Amino acid sequence: MTGLTIPETTHRDRKRELLDRADADGYDGVVLFGSLNIHYVSGMYHLATERPVALGVTDERVEAVVPRLEQEHASRDDFLIDDVTTYFEYPQSDPMGRVAEMCDRLEIADGAIAVDLDGSPARNGYTGPSLSELVAADVSVEEYVTEMRETKSDHEIELIREASVWANLGHQLLQDRIEVGRRPIEVRAEVEAEAVKPMLDALGDRYEMRSWANPMQCLFTTGEVTALPHSMNQTNRIERGDNVVTIVKPTVGGYTTELERTMFVDEASDAQRTYFEIMKESQEIAIDAIGPGVEYAAVEEAVVDYYEEQGVAEYAQHHVGHNIGMEGHERPFLDVGQAGEIQPGELFTVEPGFYLPDLGGFRHSDTVLVTDNGTETLTYYPRDLGRLIV
Amino acid sequence: MTGLTIPETTHRDRKRELLDRADADGYDGVVLFGSLNIHYVSGMYHLATERPVALGVTDERVEAVVPRLEQEHASRDDFLIDDVTTYFEYPQSDPMGRVAEMCDRLEIADGAIAVDLDGSPARNGYTGPSLSELVAADVSVEEYVTEMRETKSDHEIELIREASVWANLGHQLLQDRIEVGRRPIEVRAEVEAEAVKPMLDALGDRYEMRSWANPMQCLFTTGEVTALPHSMNQTNRIERGDNVVTIVKPTVGGYTTELERTMFVDEASDAQRTYFEIMKESQEIAIDAIGPGVEYAAVEEAVVDYYEEQGVAEYAQHHVGHNIGMEGHERPFLDVGQAGEIQPGELFTVEPGFYLPDLGGFRHSDTVLVTDNGTETLTYYPRDLGRLIV
Repeated sequence: MTGLTIPETTHRDRKRELLDRADADGYDGVVLFGSLNIHYVSGMYHLATERPVALGVTDERVEAVVPRLEQEHASRDDFLIDDVTTYFEYPQSDPMGRVAEMCDRLEIADGAIAVDLDGSPARNGYTGPSLSELVAADVSVEEYVTEMRETKSDHEIELIREASVWANLGHQLLQDRIEVGRRPIEVRAEVEAEAVKPMLDALGDRYEMRSWANPMQCLFTTGEVTALPHSMNQTNRIERGDNVVTIVKPTVGGYTTELERTMFVDEASDAQRTYFEIMKESQEIAIDAIGPGVEYAAVEEAVVDYYEEQGVAEYAQHHVGHNIGMEGHERPFLDVGQAGEIQPGELFTVEPGFYLPDLGGFRHSDTVLVTDNGTETLTYYPRDLGRLIV
Repeated sequence: MTGLTIPETTHRDRKRELLDRADADGYDGVVLFGSLNIHYVSGMYHLATERPVALGVTDERVEAVVPRLEQEHASRDDFLIDDVTTYFEYPQSDPMGRVAEMCDRLEIADGAIAVDLDGSPARNGYTGPSLSELVAADVSVEEYVTEMRETKSDHEIELIREASVWANLGHQLLQDRIEVGRRPIEVRAEVEAEAVKPMLDALGDRYEMRSWANPMQCLFTTGEVTALPHSMNQTNRIERGDNVVTIVKPTVGGYTTELERTMFVDEASDAQRTYFEIMKESQEIAIDAIGPGVEYAAVEEAVVDYYEEQGVAEYAQHHVGHNIGMEGHERPFLDVGQAGEIQPGELFTVEPGFYLPDLGGFRHSDTVLVTDNGTETLTYYPRDLGRLIV
């Protein structure tokens, strides 16, 4: 891929599919308020704040309503937007009034409108009317874009594949820099600083940031807090014998990947080694279980069966994994409650894990692409204990 | 303040005020789904994902519903939660069913319930029923917590004051490290890595991370893209003569501050100097205009009058500022459309600015506390041109 971005032809295809879905359900058009949904359909990204941003989509045209500070950006030629309406500012302007007027211009204000959200989210102190309060149309929430985002195109897959290359660099630097006595947040911040330069030097001017965050995210926790998979604690100092659980997720072209490893500091006890091997085997079982046409539920079932056999089922705290793309977590989930069958073009984090209150967490995560015939694991950092003693 | 956190007595006071507000409107209890609102009332913070988290609040007790991976954390003694109900995982579990059962136990399921959101947000692929679909009670969205968060307590002010100290360090390091030819993202990442260690060394073990993000956020843009106040572009290389616009916002105890400066690389042209002085004067006018009992709108009006006099009004892209606290942007806003009067205990970013397509952006931002008698500016990095040539 020569460009690190989704081409405009893809945005045209996405628009077509969105409208086909809406038309099949009897809608006259679509209005989107979710920032990533707007990005997905038009290419236009923005910082989501209290200021509403909306995209109106019909066969004839695509219009956007944006605050003044997004005007020039939203008007870029490479976004699939025919016309940008600007309001000055919230709360002094009436952003939702502008959205209702856009519906009038699009000739959908008296018909039936599909929305992703019925108005702009109550974020950063924002409050305002729903769209359904402002237009005569029947306004209904539909999950078309969320559904479309489940299966990735070849371009999207290439971006996630590229992100996985940089995940490997980030993880190697983490492993190189972890040191007894230091705080995880310090090591992490150094690694993120060290990793972003070669990433940008290699990817060149094609790389376009779509968020304020550093595109290299390389965090980890250490010791007992690894038993809490979503612990925020990155200040407990690294000690000899600790479990370390990493979370590395770079972003390329607006798409992210996920690479996580369980490591041990200096040495691993017999118990740590035993649990590590059970965890590692469970990930292999999960990856082997994945394939096109397999039920999502079957993957977690295979892991649970193995965990029960090994006597660790009571220590599990979450399902096997989730789809990934523009967001770090997307549907569908590798979960016994997820209906349906795995499709080619879906990507899953495969991260069965368990957590022992005194020892800590045991979890690897890799990003696995579902192909027509099986799977391809896009992240490739070593998984063996011998390579994961820091 | 010896602890860098909000004490449990404050959470009890917040619970009392929340219930007083709800009771006055005829509600039997409150259910919160917003992660920061839950944090504000109970002290319990968590990573917001597709997995619903809810807090139920009545006179008798406070209950939480959380996914398995938050169970131990949510059960911490220092959070104002009497009982934690755990569901295993989404989508296999029925989280909203557990929330409805919580309403039963709290004896509010048949009454009237105030909520911040009617269900869990459609985030990371989540979809699920609203609370109003699951309980017989009248469920209404009320903004009690958002309103309570507008005015800060002495403890909250101390945390924002402390964050402002570290903003100064971050900004000084940015100014020291900015160099022609480098990319902003690289400089920024180095500064964030360099700044977080002394911050944690100084604040000590009292510092508790409540988010995965680095508590030091020190970003900036350079050159023409500074004319777009929310540009994500941190890859255009720094050039001699550039406008640089910074955004520094550390977090302490879950509260953030904001420090922003316009700087010039190596030299400033006559035009840059002229516009800088207009911007700087406009910030002084805004700060002078703020005080208890003054209308929010009057502050922006004072700036607009001055901008019109100086011939730069057409280049403005946003209002003067916003409240700040747990979120970087909170209501109320220093905006001509904001009804009401400024109150002691509110904090505002004061950041009038304007943006010239060819030259770039001109904006300082300081965090200003409203006192009983006037204001105190908590951020204190130099504002003069002579100190802001890199």
